Amino acid sequence: MVESLIPAGYTIRPLMAADYDNGVLDCLKGLTTVGDVSRLHFEKLLAYWDARRDMYHNMVIVDNSGLVVATGTLLVEYKLIHACGKVGHIEDISVNENQQGKKLGIALIRYLLQVAKDLGCYKTILDCSEHNVGFYEKCGLKVEGIEMGYRY
Amino acid sequence: MVESLIPAGYTIRPLMAADYDNGVLDCLKGLTTVGDVSRLHFEKLLAYWDARRDMYHNMVIVDNSGLVVATGTLLVEYKLIHACGKVGHIEDISVNENQQGKKLGIALIRYLLQVAKDLGCYKTILDCSEHNVGFYEKCGLKVEGIEMGYRY
Ligand SMILES: CC(C)(COP(=O)(O)OP(=O)(O)OC[C@H]1O[C@@H](n2cnc3c(N)ncnc32)[C@H](O)[C@@H]1OP(=O)(O)O)[C@@H](O)C(=O)NCCC(=O)NCCS
Ligand SMILES: CC(C)(COP(=O)(O)OP(=O)(O)OC[C@H]1O[C@@H](n2cnc3c(N)ncnc32)[C@H](O)[C@@H]1OP(=O)(O)O)[C@@H](O)C(=O)NCCC(=O)NCCS
Repeated sequence: MVESLIPAGYTIRPLMAADYDNGVLDCLKGLTTVGDVSRLHFEKLLAYWDARRDMYHNMVIVDNSGLVVATGTLLVEYKLIHACGKVGHIEDISVNENQQGKKLGIALIRYLLQVAKDLGCYKTILDCSEHNVGFYEKCGLKVEGIEMGYRY
Repeated sequence: MVESLIPAGYTIRPLMAADYDNGVLDCLKGLTTVGDVSRLHFEKLLAYWDARRDMYHNMVIVDNSGLVVATGTLLVEYKLIHACGKVGHIEDISVNENQQGKKLGIALIRYLLQVAKDLGCYKTILDCSEHNVGFYEKCGLKVEGIEMGYRY
């Protein structure tokens, strides 16, 4: 059971509409710009993801009080290569600053890696800064290549 | 018109079921393992992608005879960060070996970057080997980070 990787006192579960009030946006602010997301926009996006549950797996870790302390997404891509293989993409990992160092990050990554495995992915990849390579190596990932980007 | 980036004598268009006989699998073999993909599996995957046209944009470049000489995919990811922003992922780029060096690759990348822009993506990213960084820099992309992976 991958749930057993989650430290005691915390629970991992799918993101839900009520998490708008449970601090999921604050949690993501530790990662990057979140910007203005109204409740309506949040609910619309959740409905969009819900209709594509074969592709989007948005998870949160909550503490005993129900506060979101960590979040992360697994996006499953359906490919032609590797005999119509599937690849998992781990996206938007964030652990609240005052909760870092408690093994929540490693538990979340291992959980998402297991979900991807159970869904039949032949690999799971993610992009990160040089600064976080050591963390992902502790999660069992290896450096595979270079991320390149174009910003509009 | 981004179509005008495509060299004379070639056409860019969405992948279609008939491309099973037009060499799309052979084209992808220049990139990686394709494996055993039956016509039925191919058509099923195309139907899956067709039902998710908001996310999958699978393009081919064909020559005058209708042969697939290049292929590439744009996967659009719907996020919560950046005010419910969208990110384009460029995947599975391949130009037939005997057609490389004719600016088909750069035309394909610029085309996919434009599609992502038109769809409202705030950035487009891809992963590549050290060997191909120079090519993507010529396409206007910059090194942004490290790709890490876990293989099952
Ligand atoms: C990176 C992040 C997810 C790690 O989560 P965390 O819960 O603090 O990490 P954990 O407690 O699970 O750490 C697991 C192990 O990795 C190590 N580790 C954590 N961050 C590290 C880093 N940046 N570099 C190297 N090792 C790191 C820990 O020391 C621990 O090692 P140990 O098992 O030997 O004690 C978290 O710091 C974070 O959210 N940062 C801000 C947002 C961000 O950068 N997200 C990732 C974007 S790709
Ligand atoms: C990489 C690839 C897509 C490039 O396509 P291509 O059609 O041969 O490239 P183009 O003719 O459009 O080249 C555009 C420019 O990039 C340069 N270029 C091409 N490949 C390059 C490389 N690996 N490193 C540096 N520059 C490169 C070309 O010389 C050209 O430069 P110029 O405009 O100054 O003359 C193609 O070689 C290929 O399919 N390779 C095998 C599969 C693969 O690696 N796919 C990418 C996976 S991430």
